[in-house]
Amino acid sequence: MSSPIAKLGHVAASTPDLEESLWFFRDVLGFNVTERVDGVAYLRGMRDWEHHTLSLAEADRAGVDHVAFRTRDAAALEELAGTFEAEGTEVTRVAAGEERGQGEAIRVEKFGHPYEFYYDVEKPDAPADQRSKLHNRLYSEAGANRIAPRRIDHVHLQDAVSPDHAAWLGDVLGFETRERYRGDDGELWGWWMAVTALPHDIAIHRETAGTDPLFHHVSYHVDDFDDLWDAADVLAEHGIAPDGGPGRHAITQADFLYVSDPASGIRVELFAGPGYLNFEPDWEPIEWTADEIGGATDHQWIGRGPEWVGLPYVDAE
Amino acid sequence: MSSPIAKLGHVAASTPDLEESLWFFRDVLGFNVTERVDGVAYLRGMRDWEHHTLSLAEADRAGVDHVAFRTRDAAALEELAGTFEAEGTEVTRVAAGEERGQGEAIRVEKFGHPYEFYYDVEKPDAPADQRSKLHNRLYSEAGANRIAPRRIDHVHLQDAVSPDHAAWLGDVLGFETRERYRGDDGELWGWWMAVTALPHDIAIHRETAGTDPLFHHVSYHVDDFDDLWDAADVLAEHGIAPDGGPGRHAITQADFLYVSDPASGIRVELFAGPGYLNFEPDWEPIEWTADEIGGATDHQWIGRGPEWVGLPYVDAE
Amino acid sequence: MSSPIAKLGHVAASTPDLEESLWFFRDVLGFNVTERVDGVAYLRGMRDWEHHTLSLAEADRAGVDHVAFRTRDAAALEELAGTFEAEGTEVTRVAAGEERGQGEAIRVEKFGHPYEFYYDVEKPDAPADQRSKLHNRLYSEAGANRIAPRRIDHVHLQDAVSPDHAAWLGDVLGFETRERYRGDDGELWGWWMAVTALPHDIAIHRETAGTDPLFHHVSYHVDDFDDLWDAADVLAEHGIAPDGGPGRHAITQADFLYVSDPASGIRVELFAGPGYLNFEPDWEPIEWTADEIGGATDHQWIGRGPEWVGLPYVDAE
Amino acid sequence: MSSPIAKLGHVAASTPDLEESLWFFRDVLGFNVTERVDGVAYLRGMRDWEHHTLSLAEADRAGVDHVAFRTRDAAALEELAGTFEAEGTEVTRVAAGEERGQGEAIRVEKFGHPYEFYYDVEKPDAPADQRSKLHNRLYSEAGANRIAPRRIDHVHLQDAVSPDHAAWLGDVLGFETRERYRGDDGELWGWWMAVTALPHDIAIHRETAGTDPLFHHVSYHVDDFDDLWDAADVLAEHGIAPDGGPGRHAITQADFLYVSDPASGIRVELFAGPGYLNFEPDWEPIEWTADEIGGATDHQWIGRGPEWVGLPYVDAE
Repeated sequence: MSSPIAKLGHVAASTPDLEESLWFFRDVLGFNVTERVDGVAYLRGMRDWEHHTLSLAEADRAGVDHVAFRTRDAAALEELAGTFEAEGTEVTRVAAGEERGQGEAIRVEKFGHPYEFYYDVEKPDAPADQRSKLHNRLYSEAGANRIAPRRIDHVHLQDAVSPDHAAWLGDVLGFETRERYRGDDGELWGWWMAVTALPHDIAIHRETAGTDPLFHHVSYHVDDFDDLWDAADVLAEHGIAPDGGPGRHAITQADFLYVSDPASGIRVELFAGPGYLNFEPDWEPIEWTADEIGGATDHQWIGRGPEWVGLPYVDAE
Repeated sequence: MSSPIAKLGHVAASTPDLEESLWFFRDVLGFNVTERVDGVAYLRGMRDWEHHTLSLAEADRAGVDHVAFRTRDAAALEELAGTFEAEGTEVTRVAAGEERGQGEAIRVEKFGHPYEFYYDVEKPDAPADQRSKLHNRLYSEAGANRIAPRRIDHVHLQDAVSPDHAAWLGDVLGFETRERYRGDDGELWGWWMAVTALPHDIAIHRETAGTDPLFHHVSYHVDDFDDLWDAADVLAEHGIAPDGGPGRHAITQADFLYVSDPASGIRVELFAGPGYLNFEPDWEPIEWTADEIGGATDHQWIGRGPEWVGLPYVDAE
Repeated sequence: MSSPIAKLGHVAASTPDLEESLWFFRDVLGFNVTERVDGVAYLRGMRDWEHHTLSLAEADRAGVDHVAFRTRDAAALEELAGTFEAEGTEVTRVAAGEERGQGEAIRVEKFGHPYEFYYDVEKPDAPADQRSKLHNRLYSEAGANRIAPRRIDHVHLQDAVSPDHAAWLGDVLGFETRERYRGDDGELWGWWMAVTALPHDIAIHRETAGTDPLFHHVSYHVDDFDDLWDAADVLAEHGIAPDGGPGRHAITQADFLYVSDPASGIRVELFAGPGYLNFEPDWEPIEWTADEIGGATDHQWIGRGPEWVGLPYVDAE
Repeated sequence: MSSPIAKLGHVAASTPDLEESLWFFRDVLGFNVTERVDGVAYLRGMRDWEHHTLSLAEADRAGVDHVAFRTRDAAALEELAGTFEAEGTEVTRVAAGEERGQGEAIRVEKFGHPYEFYYDVEKPDAPADQRSKLHNRLYSEAGANRIAPRRIDHVHLQDAVSPDHAAWLGDVLGFETRERYRGDDGELWGWWMAVTALPHDIAIHRETAGTDPLFHHVSYHVDDFDDLWDAADVLAEHGIAPDGGPGRHAITQADFLYVSDPASGIRVELFAGPGYLNFEPDWEPIEWTADEIGGATDHQWIGRGPEWVGLPYVDAE
């Protein structure tokens, strides 16, 4: 099927200390702040064209409010609303401008995860003094933080109903399973799914029964491994220990470094090449077993992965 | 429109000295030879899943026989045949197996360029002693040539009728123009077009009136700039001077090194990140002018580009 | 004082399975074999000018036979012999040619470690088909193993009498202490010492009382971190797990990867920049405490270090 | 002979516009300003221990005032003064503190080049908010300019009496010739000379008879080639074209990028590995001929070198 989804859009999160979170995301990691209004900071990477790919709202407690995907056109958004209603899912309408830079959107909760879909979005230019001379860039490299993330890459979610969740992502949203992981127990425990050429736009990680749905991380791409290694060094100078890495995943084959915002616990995975891009129209899912790459919690090709404890959703209580 | 094309497939070329061309492509650059049969060598990069992305046939003279794109499914191939016939273009059927590893295909000559389209293709595994332990890789890094290309990236063609050619690529084949170049004369002189997330799968470069249609280069992606720089060093040890680079393009923003097979003149562009990927469903073409990036023959961001003299097609006389 | 020592020369080791050790050092890591004679293989890195920097002799059991330093001239070698005899140390003369490529040498056992000193040494060219076109290189990059070590960097020894050992290295051999580590117990536990601009040519690591003198590793320099990361990938393809790293040391500030020959247990540290070079004639030793960088066994800046279990000397029983 | 010289110390230059020069050196390139006093700015790289390795004095016109080397101890400085006087060279005494951070020094003009020698020097710490957590670093990577030079590497001088100049550097100052270039005319035209393990601390380039002695560039080392490539990109964003490179020298084998301060014309070469280090006590000079590497003005291994037009000395009129 042709997917109604064009790409991952953004993650909306909350933090108990916006100033400290901005120190981490803006000053340490080098995110750009598009604007800050009504207690919400809107951030993006150096090459994110959209208004924001991460929003941080000051709130009583940390968490993720929603994960947003952009549809391939405006009609696809309305079709999606119809599909959700037809399957009995409550659809919440979000007015244009409720999130800065974004047109009308819809939200649904599926398998405990708060999803948003939108099509209309602003693509503001970089401020004049930070604008690149290159038209196909946004922010200039001159003066930029050396480890600044380039663009949003993927999200990673966890729940106890992953097989159903992954099936829905495939059947309704048109995500292809690029890779999957089968545990010691013979059950599938992980799905890496994409609508783009990336190894995944979303990963679903199965947790044991009774676990609440959780948000594990949002990933941003950096240019190459040297940036990832520099990031590890810069973080060490700031006294911030990574959650995992630097390393190279067996699954997706990409280089990684995980680190969390000290204020909110929001976890970011810095992601770099080589990885792979998929242009095959007939991709067969790659399946990995525990025999081949070890247990589900740390099956890396190089280095060590993160702890697999996610962050709750904001309204999860 | 949704494109009938999934991806660039391969380039079929001929060489007057297959042994020397294999020395260049296999021994110097590190291409893998899938098989060699009936005077044709079939080659691919380390991460090219298809049977081949470059074929070299021994022939009286060097040239390019055709440029092949894979359709998104079998039906799209047949629809394309119908579209071509409807527009009065002669469609040549190529039987399954005529090119090793490939099912039925069709060929058309458009604007002087020999295009092929196919859907069915074999994806042979790497030989057991070269197979990577990673399922999402093909060839192992162990023992591999250090500058071995990873995957085919794009082709670059030249002719005197580029505006019509580019319009056809957009209207009939569904390629999007990602970037274009407007010369001193106010005319468009270059189009970078894609059906995938890459900055381009095909570039069209306008030549002065009277110039025959030419094939300028086929590009292969390597992992990062260090590989490109290593390639320049390895080529120097072999006594082979690059045609251009190492450098970084303003257009596409990618790092490059151009080098030609001494036996055939077939030009390869080694291509590396950062470049950019496009996931925007509403991409507006980026236009560059000579004022901004200099003349059409050398508008680079870093370093110097190649000479813009292409190779003729095989049956062009 | 001006040191009689010019540089670290080589490590002579033995292995129970020379063929398998050669597979590891030559085929996996990319060492060059200068020659192989009388059951001994003489190896060196891509930029090691001397005949060899590592020798592997087939023997009943694995171990290290001696660690050799080159003196700054022939006179310095004789003065050293006189100094050793004056302090009551038995000096063993090694005839020219006993080790291939080497002139007359002397050996002493100090603090349980077998040291060799020599001045005359052959500097054979690379074989014609591997010779670089660059006069200031030895082996060509073309066709070379992508992770091939460049040059010997340092050795790391362990014993229970390190304070005396380090004092002797300073007083008699003229090594400067560049960095040192003071443990939780207030005692010094590590010395990084150099006669060259490198952060260290030799490191001495204190073991608990009763531990036999041990050889921990010999280190080879590679060009940059990318080579180290490639090495981790290539080793994974070979099914060989690193002993530690990739990581970056706090002490010396260099990037590292430790890996051991499966046949002999001889441990190699691949070492890369940035690190630092010292040209200060009045360097003050840098001292680190456990408070600052954690316990003596794993005080890394990025990543994890190796197990600190060394290899015995060959005639240590 | 053992050299009285320990290392290259600094270059003292003048600029007609100190503010603009500081914009270039500090804001664009990322030099650290140790202090600024009496119209002179004292700068150093991220890992330069000494008070400064470059000073910029505001003056009517741009030029270089002197090139300073540090002696191996205080006695060597006095011996050097005696040697110069014995050979009839006028020795000018510079009082402690005349140059900030520096003790007593002596100056001589040799072959038209103004040399300074000193031993006592301050090694101030980095400001607290920029101090690295690593004792063996000075400035922290966190917040630092991504292309900031690490340490002074070498200087390159030009004159019409280079054979005599090079002989004096060898005979009196103890520099070893590591590499040299013999031109088409059979004459030596370049000398790369060192007292340290670097490929050169000073290069002497012969100009045609009648040319005034000139200062060509001062070189700073960066960590690796990626930093050099990033520098090219950052310079392009600033609209500053390099004078040469990025490229790799045949002689010294190092990667380079040349760029000049727009205000003063002072040329900096950013220098990166691999290059080579020399620890051989019996190094034989490597000689290159025009046959092997092309003409004296552009004999590079990769890329193109700079124009070979130097800057005059300040009091040269």
